[in-house]
Amino acid sequence: MSAQAERYVEQNLSRFIQQLSDWLRIPSVSTDPDHKEDVRRAAEFVADDLRASGLTVELHETGGHPIVYAEWCGAEGAPTALVYGHYDVQPPDPLEEWDSPPFEPTVRDGRIYARGATDDKGQCFTHVKAVEAWLKTVGKLPVNVKFLIEGEEEIGSVHLDPFVRENIEKLRCDYVVISDTAQFDKGIPAITYALRGLVYAEVILRGPKSDLHSGVFGGAVANPANNLAAIVGDLVDSHGRVQLPGFYDDVLPLEEWERQEFAKLPFREDAFRAAVGTEALWGEPEYSVLERRWARPTCDINGLTAGYQGQGAKTIIPARASAKFSCRLVPNQDPQRVFRSIEHFVRERVWPGIRVEILNHGLAPAVLMDVHSPGMTAARRAIRRAFDREPVLIREGGSIPVVATFKQALGVDSLLLGWGQNDDNLHAPNERFSLEDFRRGILASVALWEELRQAAAEAR
Amino acid sequence: MSAQAERYVEQNLSRFIQQLSDWLRIPSVSTDPDHKEDVRRAAEFVADDLRASGLTVELHETGGHPIVYAEWCGAEGAPTALVYGHYDVQPPDPLEEWDSPPFEPTVRDGRIYARGATDDKGQCFTHVKAVEAWLKTVGKLPVNVKFLIEGEEEIGSVHLDPFVRENIEKLRCDYVVISDTAQFDKGIPAITYALRGLVYAEVILRGPKSDLHSGVFGGAVANPANNLAAIVGDLVDSHGRVQLPGFYDDVLPLEEWERQEFAKLPFREDAFRAAVGTEALWGEPEYSVLERRWARPTCDINGLTAGYQGQGAKTIIPARASAKFSCRLVPNQDPQRVFRSIEHFVRERVWPGIRVEILNHGLAPAVLMDVHSPGMTAARRAIRRAFDREPVLIREGGSIPVVATFKQALGVDSLLLGWGQNDDNLHAPNERFSLEDFRRGILASVALWEELRQAAAEAR
Repeated sequence: MSAQAERYVEQNLSRFIQQLSDWLRIPSVSTDPDHKEDVRRAAEFVADDLRASGLTVELHETGGHPIVYAEWCGAEGAPTALVYGHYDVQPPDPLEEWDSPPFEPTVRDGRIYARGATDDKGQCFTHVKAVEAWLKTVGKLPVNVKFLIEGEEEIGSVHLDPFVRENIEKLRCDYVVISDTAQFDKGIPAITYALRGLVYAEVILRGPKSDLHSGVFGGAVANPANNLAAIVGDLVDSHGRVQLPGFYDDVLPLEEWERQEFAKLPFREDAFRAAVGTEALWGEPEYSVLERRWARPTCDINGLTAGYQGQGAKTIIPARASAKFSCRLVPNQDPQRVFRSIEHFVRERVWPGIRVEILNHGLAPAVLMDVHSPGMTAARRAIRRAFDREPVLIREGGSIPVVATFKQALGVDSLLLGWGQNDDNLHAPNERFSLEDFRRGILASVALWEELRQAAAEAR
Repeated sequence: MSAQAERYVEQNLSRFIQQLSDWLRIPSVSTDPDHKEDVRRAAEFVADDLRASGLTVELHETGGHPIVYAEWCGAEGAPTALVYGHYDVQPPDPLEEWDSPPFEPTVRDGRIYARGATDDKGQCFTHVKAVEAWLKTVGKLPVNVKFLIEGEEEIGSVHLDPFVRENIEKLRCDYVVISDTAQFDKGIPAITYALRGLVYAEVILRGPKSDLHSGVFGGAVANPANNLAAIVGDLVDSHGRVQLPGFYDDVLPLEEWERQEFAKLPFREDAFRAAVGTEALWGEPEYSVLERRWARPTCDINGLTAGYQGQGAKTIIPARASAKFSCRLVPNQDPQRVFRSIEHFVRERVWPGIRVEILNHGLAPAVLMDVHSPGMTAARRAIRRAFDREPVLIREGGSIPVVATFKQALGVDSLLLGWGQNDDNLHAPNERFSLEDFRRGILASVALWEELRQAAAEAR
């Protein structure tokens, strides 16, 4: 039956691109209070579009920007998929580096350029249009589909987490579907089956009540900057192995098949190194670069602040020194436990005369999806149909905290089906999205609803 | 013969205070280009005053502010003293914290309040007036006296060093006399016979060409902030012992008499700790607090800069991280050697993929004066006569680089005769100078010229 929906996609593609342009034209910068009404307009835009396709749509008010919820639940007995996406975008700065204005969508070389083109309006819209294609042709979907599209992803999803936890029945589903990642490379579609987690801490050390002359006082008063460096300088060894006691105890090792699959991927270390702009890559020598980025935990210092930061010399013992640092976690590591171990590690290294404060800037566990689930099988088949190629199974080094929320609150895996490319410039000037990836993404979504029903039937 | 000069001081004291006020009223802030003419006026003020007393005076132009040189060399066969001082002052900010305007000298509770009151116009003026007292009464001085008063002390004495090295014959002397330090405490005059030196370095580490996402890249790219912390965090141990190889090899240990004298000083650790505003003092446990501040080398981090320094969290691997740090040196340590050892220490700890740059922000050796010299004997006697009390012999933890310059270029010790108090607020709002210390300082200087001649005669 999907043939009709697929034909509808091909016939309506230019209208879909026009609609996406209209959505992209709305500057829904969630972090900027001046764009508060634009953010709402962007929510209403997608809400109206989903309503026009025949879904039941609700706009949920939050303390911040609204959450769009929509559903079509007419496929009794069939699986239910929850599409998660976001309609807010990053600020467009620096404006002068854009070749065309960020909120005037422009097509060049088969790509649409605009803030939000790939992150996430363009990718999210593929599912919106796939649902329309089914409903406007077949008149129904093979599975039940719900949409949860928020407006605060770029500012930490502050109101999404409580919304999910308070609406577990409404959001009940078999899989979450998210298109907010990237393909492995051009022409190599991918499914991301694991994400690293995060523990973000800030340590503030305070010594003398004000900066002191290092000549008059040096040797008699503990220097918070020396103490801070001694503490955070011990977090990793020279190969990046994290020195927090017990840090690796719970780490789930990579399985043999994963190491083999990663090794087969066409990853060019040289090109990666050149893009980073460094003379040598670095890290645990017993793991490959992809393994280190995707499946090994880390501890990176994100910021250091102490004393005199101007030109030249100033001979002071600073009153205060602080460090922000964060661990990327891998599956099975407990963020709470890691944070406690950071607290212990820091406190036992504080020198006499120094007071310590430790802030928690966020905890998120890693997630690891079941690659053998019916949902995963369906996603692989759907992508193969739309992209004419078997997707590769990859992990991702970053964190998408909402995936852990869905796992914890709803008990379901997320299917991370990225249609974007690594060079789509998300969060950067000249953000873009290939129209061919947009088209294939819609077709993959059209196929996905069918394959999800089929795979579920096979699994029975 | 000094009795006449002493009487002259007592009779003219209120005029001296008035003249000091006139000098203090000139805002000779050397660092501020807007005050360039004021700085020159302050130079001319003291030049005129010295000329009026009968000295030969020269105003030497430099690339910056002028150097005042004056001399009276009519004491053939007698020793020669070179008085060093400075007529420039620190900026007065923050203005709102001054109880009376910084350039409207005001007498309250027997103290004169103004920027430069103690540092160094007030202290320097004691010698100017002592010379006047001798010349206006006896008509000659017991020794030859030269003055070298610069206008760039607060901005690093950039033009003084070359001036001294180019004018060695002109500046030839047996002792330099400097009043730019403090008494040990109220009623406890002191002679400072040793200063610590300084090695100031900055280490800049550069990794990726721009900040990277710590999720996407963490584990595969060396983080300059982690590397920096690992390096500078190893500079000292938890008791402040410097870990640079060979750092202590050349250190001249404290002599037994010094430890005994320091132990006798009425130093109150509790009050010191409370003034610092810390819960505990810190440092090498086998040395007292005064020993640690005055006679033990240190390494203090003065500034740290890396990555994100705003509120909250940002998950980056910073492209760059830098640290400023400085060692205080004690007698016999070679600043060049210490700097080379820092370079070696840093370079051997740099991780793959990180580029390092090491800046030298200044080297100055420690100085140690001969406490048994005739000059020191004369200074002790002169102070005892003026302050009715034997001065204590102390060291100072800070550095006065010009003292090392005089030692190297002229081969002479400096007599550091501080008339100020530790709470005179130098470099801070409400800088002040006790009029009684001003009076006793002039009288000590009057006596010094006589005692220098006497001690030299005894030593023959």
